[in-house]
Amino acid sequence: MNEFDYINEFFKPLTNKFAGNLKNDAAIFNQRSSFDLVISTDTLVEGIHFFGNEDPADIAKKSLRVNLSDIAAMGAKPIFYNLALSLPKQKAKMFIPKFAKGLKDDQKIFNVKLIGGDLTSSLKHINVTITIFGETLKNKSITREGSNVGDSLYVSGTLGLSKIGLDNFSSNLKKFRDAKNKYLLPEPRIDLGISLSNIVNSMIDISDGLVQDATHLAKNSNLSIELDIDKVPVPIINKLDKNKILDSALYGGDDYELLFSCNPSKDIFLNKLSSKTDIKITKIGFFKEFKDVYLKFKDSTSKPKNSFLHF
Amino acid sequence: MNEFDYINEFFKPLTNKFAGNLKNDAAIFNQRSSFDLVISTDTLVEGIHFFGNEDPADIAKKSLRVNLSDIAAMGAKPIFYNLALSLPKQKAKMFIPKFAKGLKDDQKIFNVKLIGGDLTSSLKHINVTITIFGETLKNKSITREGSNVGDSLYVSGTLGLSKIGLDNFSSNLKKFRDAKNKYLLPEPRIDLGISLSNIVNSMIDISDGLVQDATHLAKNSNLSIELDIDKVPVPIINKLDKNKILDSALYGGDDYELLFSCNPSKDIFLNKLSSKTDIKITKIGFFKEFKDVYLKFKDSTSKPKNSFLHF
Repeated sequence: MNEFDYINEFFKPLTNKFAGNLKNDAAIFNQRSSFDLVISTDTLVEGIHFFGNEDPADIAKKSLRVNLSDIAAMGAKPIFYNLALSLPKQKAKMFIPKFAKGLKDDQKIFNVKLIGGDLTSSLKHINVTITIFGETLKNKSITREGSNVGDSLYVSGTLGLSKIGLDNFSSNLKKFRDAKNKYLLPEPRIDLGISLSNIVNSMIDISDGLVQDATHLAKNSNLSIELDIDKVPVPIINKLDKNKILDSALYGGDDYELLFSCNPSKDIFLNKLSSKTDIKITKIGFFKEFKDVYLKFKDSTSKPKNSFLHF
Repeated sequence: MNEFDYINEFFKPLTNKFAGNLKNDAAIFNQRSSFDLVISTDTLVEGIHFFGNEDPADIAKKSLRVNLSDIAAMGAKPIFYNLALSLPKQKAKMFIPKFAKGLKDDQKIFNVKLIGGDLTSSLKHINVTITIFGETLKNKSITREGSNVGDSLYVSGTLGLSKIGLDNFSSNLKKFRDAKNKYLLPEPRIDLGISLSNIVNSMIDISDGLVQDATHLAKNSNLSIELDIDKVPVPIINKLDKNKILDSALYGGDDYELLFSCNPSKDIFLNKLSSKTDIKITKIGFFKEFKDVYLKFKDSTSKPKNSFLHF
């Protein structure tokens, strides 16, 4: 099979009308003035972001989901994506059919379609770059700016599980199963992001660890966050040191939970939303005037450490 | 320098307002109903599409230009792009400043800006994926479909030079200088594409060789092309076998000239456009009812061979 055979057999069935059956040099998207288009790109690289021996379907899903999480953080509805896949030619026959099946399954769950991309060979490693597109009503996207003094800081779900899954990926112990699953297949908080979009002042998805991503929120509004680390929602894992779990929550990456600022008067709305969606929402700090540092821990002698950097 | 330092110092200065200073999870594009957005992605991989020891500025420019060429083929005006760059961490300090300078220079020439992307490390090779965005008036994009029986087939510029440049890349002979330059820095035919958009029936940019890309045009309109290979515009290179030059034109890739179908009544317009733009436009064949094959050579005993496949 050559480039065009793979595209026709495995990728064309994943497309929507904007893709024009992948026959043209570009996809054609009909703009609508009442909406903004939000656009984001995330790359996953073999040996850096994934091992390479995972099920290709899981690599596909994770690639799509980390991108969907960026759309969730903007309070937007994902609509389509394009895909640049580079891989060694000899891997194509094994990899592409499973990879495309993974995309197909997640497309159904998250209601997105493929609009185009590029399929190329590489000498050694697999590289998956997805550009995801979402829509909001005009000027309704949520950014990382806009927090006010007195806003509370909230986070969805629990934090740290993905890092624990990564650290124990080769373990077969049952107690790490959830953590490994969360690392492999994060859950982009799309519906939650849309529901939050009317009340939050700023939002980000936690891909680089709570401390680093909270610092982004503080910095972009030129405020300080006081973080109550006793409140940070962490998983309970049998016989795993609590400090290690907290460290994973504060500095581990890949959680893809939503972190947002909002006036504390919205607590009732947030409680109802949490019940309705069955997603935990926890208040973990508040914003105050900037002084000295963007982030400090409440009542703690310890100071924030540096977090994971992709580069 | 870490990921954020590189982004702030080298990439943020390349952005437009939609990028929001690269501070958010996504770019925000304000849609306008009277326009279509055309979207295309091309990846260049070290060891496959470039050697790796080129000036990083040239790698940046080629990456942008092959994408711009796709926008030209749609008859669209390029507006912005996003960039996913993966490279080994130890190469970053040498590579990124020059790479960003290359983008900066070409942004001025082609009037495009950066809106976002991703910077990641890789274990061994460099991977550059650009997604380019262009605009046309609503429903005015040119596709690969739409050719009619009796349409002529035209091509811009000369063909084959880029393949000759690649084949002689290590030669220092003066006669290969233009060819090597064309291989390194193709010239996307943006203004020509826009000027042609009102009169052509179908269009494509030649990235995979004339035979293969002409076949795409024929196939997508379910017609046959009769190609007059004596008319194919080729460069003259001293002491280089003419058949070898023709072969490069027919089957070599990376020319990025525009190939289009149009009613022969437009010849006067095309002649004037050619004079005005100083870009050669040559009639090299015509479209007829499909019978047996999508492409055949006029008055020739030879038959089209298979072309270069990316995969």
